[in-house]
Amino acid sequence: MKVAAYIDDQFNRFVSELQAWCRQPSVSGANRGIPEMVALVRETLIAAGLAVQVFTVPGGHPVVYAERKGTTDKTLLFYGHYDVQPPEPLEAWASGPFEAEVRDGRLFARGVADDKACLLSRVQAVEALLKTRGELPVSVKFLVEGEEEIGSSHLRPFVESHKELLAADWCIWEYAAKNELGYPTMTLGNKGLCYLQLTAAGPSQDWHSMFAPVIPNPAWRLVWALASLKNERDEILVEGFYHDVAPLSEAELAALARIPTDAEKLKASAGLDHLVQDVEGIELKKRLYAAPTCNICGFTAGHVHSGKKGIVPARATAHVDLRLVVNQQPADILDKVRRHLVAHGFGDIQVEMLEGMMPAKTAVNTPFVDVVVQAARRAYKNEITVLPTSPGAGPREVFSTWTDMPIVGLGVGHAGSGVHGPNENVILEDYREGIQHIAALIEQLGISSA
Amino acid sequence: MKVAAYIDDQFNRFVSELQAWCRQPSVSGANRGIPEMVALVRETLIAAGLAVQVFTVPGGHPVVYAERKGTTDKTLLFYGHYDVQPPEPLEAWASGPFEAEVRDGRLFARGVADDKACLLSRVQAVEALLKTRGELPVSVKFLVEGEEEIGSSHLRPFVESHKELLAADWCIWEYAAKNELGYPTMTLGNKGLCYLQLTAAGPSQDWHSMFAPVIPNPAWRLVWALASLKNERDEILVEGFYHDVAPLSEAELAALARIPTDAEKLKASAGLDHLVQDVEGIELKKRLYAAPTCNICGFTAGHVHSGKKGIVPARATAHVDLRLVVNQQPADILDKVRRHLVAHGFGDIQVEMLEGMMPAKTAVNTPFVDVVVQAARRAYKNEITVLPTSPGAGPREVFSTWTDMPIVGLGVGHAGSGVHGPNENVILEDYREGIQHIAALIEQLGISSA
Repeated sequence: MKVAAYIDDQFNRFVSELQAWCRQPSVSGANRGIPEMVALVRETLIAAGLAVQVFTVPGGHPVVYAERKGTTDKTLLFYGHYDVQPPEPLEAWASGPFEAEVRDGRLFARGVADDKACLLSRVQAVEALLKTRGELPVSVKFLVEGEEEIGSSHLRPFVESHKELLAADWCIWEYAAKNELGYPTMTLGNKGLCYLQLTAAGPSQDWHSMFAPVIPNPAWRLVWALASLKNERDEILVEGFYHDVAPLSEAELAALARIPTDAEKLKASAGLDHLVQDVEGIELKKRLYAAPTCNICGFTAGHVHSGKKGIVPARATAHVDLRLVVNQQPADILDKVRRHLVAHGFGDIQVEMLEGMMPAKTAVNTPFVDVVVQAARRAYKNEITVLPTSPGAGPREVFSTWTDMPIVGLGVGHAGSGVHGPNENVILEDYREGIQHIAALIEQLGISSA
Repeated sequence: MKVAAYIDDQFNRFVSELQAWCRQPSVSGANRGIPEMVALVRETLIAAGLAVQVFTVPGGHPVVYAERKGTTDKTLLFYGHYDVQPPEPLEAWASGPFEAEVRDGRLFARGVADDKACLLSRVQAVEALLKTRGELPVSVKFLVEGEEEIGSSHLRPFVESHKELLAADWCIWEYAAKNELGYPTMTLGNKGLCYLQLTAAGPSQDWHSMFAPVIPNPAWRLVWALASLKNERDEILVEGFYHDVAPLSEAELAALARIPTDAEKLKASAGLDHLVQDVEGIELKKRLYAAPTCNICGFTAGHVHSGKKGIVPARATAHVDLRLVVNQQPADILDKVRRHLVAHGFGDIQVEMLEGMMPAKTAVNTPFVDVVVQAARRAYKNEITVLPTSPGAGPREVFSTWTDMPIVGLGVGHAGSGVHGPNENVILEDYREGIQHIAALIEQLGISSA
């Protein structure tokens, strides 16, 4: 039996395995279900034919490592994570976030797209190759961490102390998604991240709002401070913020131009009648794939949901994520935000960086990229699209600082997967194609390495 | 036994009755405990010697009315409410909000200051007079509603359809507090209120913040819209907002000048190192007692308290209360806010008025005010302070539109009572003095009416 036929033959079982993974909560931020998820990942990897080691991480969640030697001396490394985002708000889910219900050809669960289905598709591709060929044409390694959703803070020390173990010629990164037109994508980079918590303090406890004429209100302070960071034309006003942004190369601009995109479909899937600054075409793509951002993820002051309450709240807190592009650095951006606030009279606002991540990217003109493209033609109807940088952040830079191996993000999500939101889902047909793509890629790498 | 001696003699029982009232939750906004509280108020009024009627209010909470004829044809009306604010945030209370714990000479409970202790002090004063004199020198009436904390929306129709029942010569209003220097106060007016909910809509559900470059963020929209309403110098920028503010009279300015106040004590009690615009002295008093406000009571977008979450939130909601002074009108202010937002490019922000209340005040030069001052000298060490207007809102205007009876707010709170906040409390010695003051006032009114 050919590997592609084996995958089709076993696909129902593969979906059942994915459901089992999704029914096991593994919320790293809430320290929920981690040991159970590690055990499940380990069993699955062993059953697929891999040798597994679980590394405990002092003060963190375990790293699962697995490998299988191939018949050539080339090695493909898979990076993924078994942890997921918190499922809240629960009331917004049509079925429970850990029920893994299948409806209309989709599997709904927290973390199914980001990235349990992506990771498992690779394990199942390896299983399919071993069951049908008996051996792998190149060696494969899996590095599976449990802290990607909380900043991967232990990944760098782990990688730096296991360079030999992790050495590889190419790397497939955790996640990618079909775009809103149904084209599969690969990402050659990640944005960086500077995730900040801004806090304003008011009276020592909530005060009756009759005192509002004289008691300083921390919600107002935070509103004014935030309004000083970015204006209504979406221009980030932090002094020097854009200073280190590297210009796009010709090859990147050409790749951006080739990305099929449709502002109308994006609007429809988000239920919106307009996008930021009404962007479309190449401007939309430059923003999404190449521009840094300053985004309010959350703002809490007082108690809006418990009804009317006439108070001056005791404190106000905002979470702001700034996604960075090469060569911006999170520590430098933090410093610039702090200096900006002081310069604008907001020295009372406390700023804390909850997560920092460097941006990183692989050049568009890399032979490995072509191999991924060719393999994709065997799995997908539509040509795969090359995204010079994912709009998302990720710890790719942890690898790019010690090795120049190309790193390509692939995955089985789609534009409506709702990652990090309620009703996160994967289309099962995308999942099948994703397994096929990885199996074809490993075969293709064997041919080009022989 | 003299009435003052009776009050001292019975004071421990009076405190026990107050605890029983406070242990009965009566959160109008959550529709919690209302029938039980109505029954408790009714029993207490009957036991004190009053004739009670409970009026059901279609679509609202019942009104409790009570009366007792006096020996002259003059009538004193007490207005109060049996409902309380929601107790959240529960974790901020040192003892349960409905435990009514006594610590260090204070009783801690949601609603004890605002205004169960105020209301009960009047009932107990009537009881004391009846037990010691056998009769009252003037008639008394009690109007006790259950919707003061949610906007008193049924009070106006009730009053307008029961004008004869409620007719009186003078009225004592629900609440007042000793100021931060320990001086008892009386309030001759209330600010009005225009309590708004502002909502901005974003994507149909929370989206991964990697899309922040193109997906409009409702938290940013709301931040920018709010920042357009008031600047950092605390100037309200809504066009025409100050247009209808009536200038203060000479008598009001003189009364403001006499108010003892201490910015340092206010700061210390709120745990602050500064007040808004560093006001002090007469400027502080003009703001607190005579200036309209625009205050953010709450702001919610995203999920700050469930950890880091990289999202563009689906919606952002703010509660803004504007406290109004004579002659500002809530419907007019709502209209001005809406027109301001549209004019500044924020026509996408939904504005809903959750509560509206007109400002109202009694003139400083009114004979009844002098009687209250004289009676206070028998109950308090310090001279009572006349506040031309309370900093708080209240439905006084419901009465002032059909009768010119003077309305004076009195009460047993203090500057650290924490009304509407956690650990709301009343100092028991203030409570005792409050009962003595009302008993003395009724006796004094009898003398001046005889």
